[in-house]
Amino acid sequence: MKDFKVAICQMLTTDNKEKNISKAVQMIEEAAQNGAALVVLPEIFNSPYDNGCFPVYAEEFPGYTSIAMMEVARNCGIYLVAGSIPEREGEKIYNTSYFYDRQGKLIGKHRKMHLFDINIEGGQYFKESDVLSPGDDFAVFDTELGKIGIGICYDIRFPEYFRVLSEKGAELIVLPAAFNMTTGPAHWEISVRMRAVDNQVYMVAASPARDENASYVSYGNSRIVDPWGTILASAQTEECIIYGNVSGGKLSSIREQLPLIKHLKRNKYGIEIK
Amino acid sequence: MKDFKVAICQMLTTDNKEKNISKAVQMIEEAAQNGAALVVLPEIFNSPYDNGCFPVYAEEFPGYTSIAMMEVARNCGIYLVAGSIPEREGEKIYNTSYFYDRQGKLIGKHRKMHLFDINIEGGQYFKESDVLSPGDDFAVFDTELGKIGIGICYDIRFPEYFRVLSEKGAELIVLPAAFNMTTGPAHWEISVRMRAVDNQVYMVAASPARDENASYVSYGNSRIVDPWGTILASAQTEECIIYGNVSGGKLSSIREQLPLIKHLKRNKYGIEIK
Repeated sequence: MKDFKVAICQMLTTDNKEKNISKAVQMIEEAAQNGAALVVLPEIFNSPYDNGCFPVYAEEFPGYTSIAMMEVARNCGIYLVAGSIPEREGEKIYNTSYFYDRQGKLIGKHRKMHLFDINIEGGQYFKESDVLSPGDDFAVFDTELGKIGIGICYDIRFPEYFRVLSEKGAELIVLPAAFNMTTGPAHWEISVRMRAVDNQVYMVAASPARDENASYVSYGNSRIVDPWGTILASAQTEECIIYGNVSGGKLSSIREQLPLIKHLKRNKYGIEIK
Repeated sequence: MKDFKVAICQMLTTDNKEKNISKAVQMIEEAAQNGAALVVLPEIFNSPYDNGCFPVYAEEFPGYTSIAMMEVARNCGIYLVAGSIPEREGEKIYNTSYFYDRQGKLIGKHRKMHLFDINIEGGQYFKESDVLSPGDDFAVFDTELGKIGIGICYDIRFPEYFRVLSEKGAELIVLPAAFNMTTGPAHWEISVRMRAVDNQVYMVAASPARDENASYVSYGNSRIVDPWGTILASAQTEECIIYGNVSGGKLSSIREQLPLIKHLKRNKYGIEIK
């Protein structure tokens, strides 16, 4: 893993797709100007987070949103994990993250594997699986910065997914996400920190800014966390860009001093991919 | 899972084995008098946590320590996870936890699977594997209270171990432990909370009280955590007993509202036991 600066654009999403895209472009440009080599957007950044909106805002690839993202990655010369958008393929809609390199080339994508279906008494209700289809990829990509994995939001609930990314060599995992006002305060930060510690990776967890008037209120609180679980950068609820310095030396040093990956009892257990 | 009260005896261990045992007995009796149905001691409660001491304090089963624990479990009519002690079997020494029922019968044991070998720059150094041998059991036991799993300290570092206990039906996991002044502040509480949330189990994590003069200084901070990750009871550093109310109804309700176990993608991945 190289040393570089990573940025999260904690943008406020609206119901205006063009406005969302131009806001994303503007924030990415600012992050690049400030020296970020990898820029990350939140989950579903071109649409409200609402089952009713997903089919309306969904695009095939390449489409209006993905072309704009290719262009800004190329123009800025940065690696870009463009959060996620509703992606249409045939009859199906996925919650998909596209990953572009410095030339604006798509180097990989991740379709959210674990759909968010919860029903908390007096709290959050949501059923993504009414509209979305799950993906089936374990997303890790080789870049000149290092090996970068991608999960989306509810994927973080499943340690197996993150362990597989780590076993595939991930050194940094990007998580476009949109936790809510029930699960956010309860689980967001410890989940991000713990996946970092357990898998000895950097975690870059990007949320939209909070909009109290949206049908789904995002928790905000984007975080950049190092492999020791230390928080390098925190957002609160408002629109902002946060930055963190990734260090290959620190990654190696933590893996050597607290050798959790080395201490896995591979002769006793292992995660099997089916 | 039944409704019952669980207690952690965060005892101060000394280099006097008899004193350690009589202190443990006295604290267990107090916890039982206060209504605890399950009582938990910390890791290595009959000996200093020191490689030089393990062979000296080690006992075969049944031995001086384990017989005292059988007796107090029977006399108090409680379930007892008697922390852990250095256990000798043939040429080998294990870090072993014994689990007794209300009649003082041994219903199971767990030998620490993951030995603690770390070397933090300017922080903690320890190499258990110089003296101890690892166990190989995934410890879950049926009781009238519910299905209870056991891990010991460094076992908590490995999500696979806890997932296997959960898949074997654990509803509450006991963790006799002794985190230190480097990893304790950094990782102890979030590890306990996150294993509870991920696996939808109660976590009962017992540390010794802190002794600043010991060769290995324990972090203390015993915790009882519910399956939502909420801390039900916290110790600080001093010797004390903490109590938490376990609720079968709450366990079921959390598993229903946030169905993480149900949402595991068993068709995509799974933990294989070798």
